[in-house]
Amino acid sequence: MKRCWITDKPLEVSSMVELVTRREAGAINTFIGTVREFTEGKRTLFLQYEAYTSMAEKKLEEIAEEIDRKWPDVKIAIAHRIGRLEISDIAVIIAVSTPHRDDSFEASRYAIERMKEVVPIWKKEHWENGQEWIGNQKETKQGIPREEEIR
Amino acid sequence: MKRCWITDKPLEVSSMVELVTRREAGAINTFIGTVREFTEGKRTLFLQYEAYTSMAEKKLEEIAEEIDRKWPDVKIAIAHRIGRLEISDIAVIIAVSTPHRDDSFEASRYAIERMKEVVPIWKKEHWENGQEWIGNQKETKQGIPREEEIR
Repeated sequence: MKRCWITDKPLEVSSMVELVTRREAGAINTFIGTVREFTEGKRTLFLQYEAYTSMAEKKLEEIAEEIDRKWPDVKIAIAHRIGRLEISDIAVIIAVSTPHRDDSFEASRYAIERMKEVVPIWKKEHWENGQEWIGNQKETKQGIPREEEIR
Repeated sequence: MKRCWITDKPLEVSSMVELVTRREAGAINTFIGTVREFTEGKRTLFLQYEAYTSMAEKKLEEIAEEIDRKWPDVKIAIAHRIGRLEISDIAVIIAVSTPHRDDSFEASRYAIERMKEVVPIWKKEHWENGQEWIGNQKETKQGIPREEEIR
């Protein structure tokens, strides 16, 4: 079964937690990214996420492999939703289980930071006063990235 | 509605996440403590948690108030289960929502560390080869604490 995927269906935290629950784990950390209404005073009405899906899933799996190497006894699942998302909808869930809690926090944090860096998912902000494509997950670039930028 | 509580019922991550979901939040971190089978090579069969419930809930609420002060735009919920817990059962869930992800990780981490320090919950380890009361959550003391130790 896949541990990293892109979907246009709503994400559900319980099932992500179940995926990483195991007898060896004493700690599970989940990070959930939700659609926030206001960003620096600008109001979001809704968002649209698009992904280069096969590449995005490949990059997520690479992040999971990095985590396997850095935290030997870890189990991780990552899912990102695409399509139209309303305020408070869940865009991403990372779930990480480890024997001890330090590692669960660290690996979860690592996963979201790496996702922002390398996974080709972009979003269209539908602001109250217009629309804008955010070209990378770090939100430092506008516009849809060219194909060579996301490989 | 209470945001911090002790219960003898199973804990459910989805409902904890719902409690902190809101339009201002872009990030939710959850920390889930589960019953691990092996600790330093010793096998746990099951655990029993007991709490000085009214005091434990008061201490959890104090931790939530500390977090309100340290991270101004935060919403937190904390629940701890008591009674008999089997391997992989959830003992504790902390859910924290904030506008941005840094704060969600930090506040969640802070909450679990403070819980281990100040909340009068103790556990009886039912090892494969015997039983042992763990007198504090930091697991540095054995035996049930005297009443004056947990105030």
